[in-house]
Amino acid sequence: MKIQITQNNLHKALTLLSRVASTKSPLPILSNILLSVKNGVLELSATNLEVAITHTARGKIEKEGSVTVPARLFTDFISQLPKNETIELFFDKNKLLITAGSYSSHIQGTVSDDYPALPTLSTKESLVVDTKSLQQTLTRTMLAASHDDSRPVLGGVLFHTIDKQLYIAATDGYRLAESALSIEADIKNSIVPTSTLQDVLKILQDTSEKTVTMQFEDGQFGLKCEETTLVSRLIEGQYPEYKQLIPESSEISATIVREELLTAAKLAGLFARESGGSITLNASEADSSLVVSSVASQVGDNTSSISGKVSGDGNVVLNVRYLTDALNCFETNEITFRFSGSISPCVLSSKEQPGYQHIVMPLKS
Amino acid sequence: MKIQITQNNLHKALTLLSRVASTKSPLPILSNILLSVKNGVLELSATNLEVAITHTARGKIEKEGSVTVPARLFTDFISQLPKNETIELFFDKNKLLITAGSYSSHIQGTVSDDYPALPTLSTKESLVVDTKSLQQTLTRTMLAASHDDSRPVLGGVLFHTIDKQLYIAATDGYRLAESALSIEADIKNSIVPTSTLQDVLKILQDTSEKTVTMQFEDGQFGLKCEETTLVSRLIEGQYPEYKQLIPESSEISATIVREELLTAAKLAGLFARESGGSITLNASEADSSLVVSSVASQVGDNTSSISGKVSGDGNVVLNVRYLTDALNCFETNEITFRFSGSISPCVLSSKEQPGYQHIVMPLKS
Repeated sequence: MKIQITQNNLHKALTLLSRVASTKSPLPILSNILLSVKNGVLELSATNLEVAITHTARGKIEKEGSVTVPARLFTDFISQLPKNETIELFFDKNKLLITAGSYSSHIQGTVSDDYPALPTLSTKESLVVDTKSLQQTLTRTMLAASHDDSRPVLGGVLFHTIDKQLYIAATDGYRLAESALSIEADIKNSIVPTSTLQDVLKILQDTSEKTVTMQFEDGQFGLKCEETTLVSRLIEGQYPEYKQLIPESSEISATIVREELLTAAKLAGLFARESGGSITLNASEADSSLVVSSVASQVGDNTSSISGKVSGDGNVVLNVRYLTDALNCFETNEITFRFSGSISPCVLSSKEQPGYQHIVMPLKS
Repeated sequence: MKIQITQNNLHKALTLLSRVASTKSPLPILSNILLSVKNGVLELSATNLEVAITHTARGKIEKEGSVTVPARLFTDFISQLPKNETIELFFDKNKLLITAGSYSSHIQGTVSDDYPALPTLSTKESLVVDTKSLQQTLTRTMLAASHDDSRPVLGGVLFHTIDKQLYIAATDGYRLAESALSIEADIKNSIVPTSTLQDVLKILQDTSEKTVTMQFEDGQFGLKCEETTLVSRLIEGQYPEYKQLIPESSEISATIVREELLTAAKLAGLFARESGGSITLNASEADSSLVVSSVASQVGDNTSSISGKVSGDGNVVLNVRYLTDALNCFETNEITFRFSGSISPCVLSSKEQPGYQHIVMPLKS
């Protein structure tokens, strides 16, 4: 194997792959990256058996062949080389020789035969999605997924369609986020692991392409974007019927400036450390206000009064982190916060950001 | 006590002070900030008994008085309030009432009588120093100070004068950095704690003033900058005669592009993980080159050849972190690296950055 490639091209590929090639794997070769020169291109691949990413990079090919090298060392080495430098990779006698100007190195490689076979995408029909929309949607939804391993399905994000409309949802039982993505689709319920979607986000951030394609096959999720292909397993199991948790209407509603509620929540959070983060929201129709407050017995207390369009009266106790997380999922000026007393789910939404809603369960007050 | 003050002014003061007010102190009141309104200004102070900082802030005063409040909670609360908001502070019945627009809070305070007396600066003559120069000089010198408590004097930075020229030096026994600051001074040898100088750097970063004043008194260091005064104890003891460690001349010298040596060192460092960071530098006059290399037996090896003006031949083994730290202390294009075989100290300097030299002791090869 012999190829010349610019530092930029190689570095971009490696930063995408190095997240996947894990040194923690019980299979040592999975901490390596597979380099494969064939059919006129350099393919770089990494997998942790859950997700596999392949990136095709352009370069000047002198000889075909393939090798695997330790991902971390190889990535660190390439990232330290000067930008725009031309790098020559030459694999011979179990060693990869890397040369770039006056810098050179040998890295011990392993023959590629030992590397596990990589999953491929079928040529089945795939969904074309706007890159920016997918990025925003995933960011706003993923954070509601569970980090607790006891219910594996909640560690993923559900993709499903109702009347050909694609919905993306996640919940950890305490909060729930749902986005409608405005594309016509008709897919089976598919639960994609959150860790896969973190890799997807990285790919979406790096690309200059306006659209990407997604594929949901039996047991497999795929994403294609320029020279990058990601294939991931899906999480097996039945996702809870989350739709029934979202109240269609609420008794009390406040439409207020999002930034003001966020400030009020953060201030209240400072006094909620000893109470495990519980803060109280109180809506008053007569005062046209939503009052956020918290008390720390030995330390002090705190009250913020936010004016807005308020209908109904009542109060609810929330975990401050769930509320601030939810508010940060909106990029809007106004937010509508609605609830029905102290035990029903609270719903955050905004006319400025249609198709998205974020539900937070109240704490026992 | 009652005062109105802008969020900007109060926030600036608190970020300076909150580093000093430590929750780790055995004296609980030292985790508080002292607020004192008298003689027409608000003075905010914090001390950990080693260093004390006082900041004077302007505001609209309605009633004199003083109080101490928990530094962290107060700072966090003020920093969350909207910028440019006017904040009213009102102390009554052991509670500080903070009001800003629709946000308000009570924080439990302590009467100021319990707060320790703060050291003051004498009206003695002080040195006027250029802010930017002092900032650069401290940054480049401090990092060579020791983090090991076994020799307290090495945990500080030495300020001393020779022929009315001020020198600032630090060493941990493995490396040494010395700066000459171009001001005429005549002070006693003074060892300032590194932690104090970190506070000094924070003050220098925040100020828009072109000059600051420093004072070295018996057992005490002082810095004054706009509305901020810092007073610190000095470290007692005899600083080693470090000057004799700096070789006046060397047998081998290489003047090369600093960035290239830095890249070569970082690359070599990647293969030096198993050898505790040891990398080899080899100078060749005939080849006009400095070659940096390292070997990791199971992993691979690495060689970088840097061209430059080289006189003499020889090699030396260095710790890669000390070399990269040293190179990062220069903001120059070229660097001169000189040494005399494998056991004498190596000296880094640059004509573009006069008055500064950085010494690194070799490792046993």
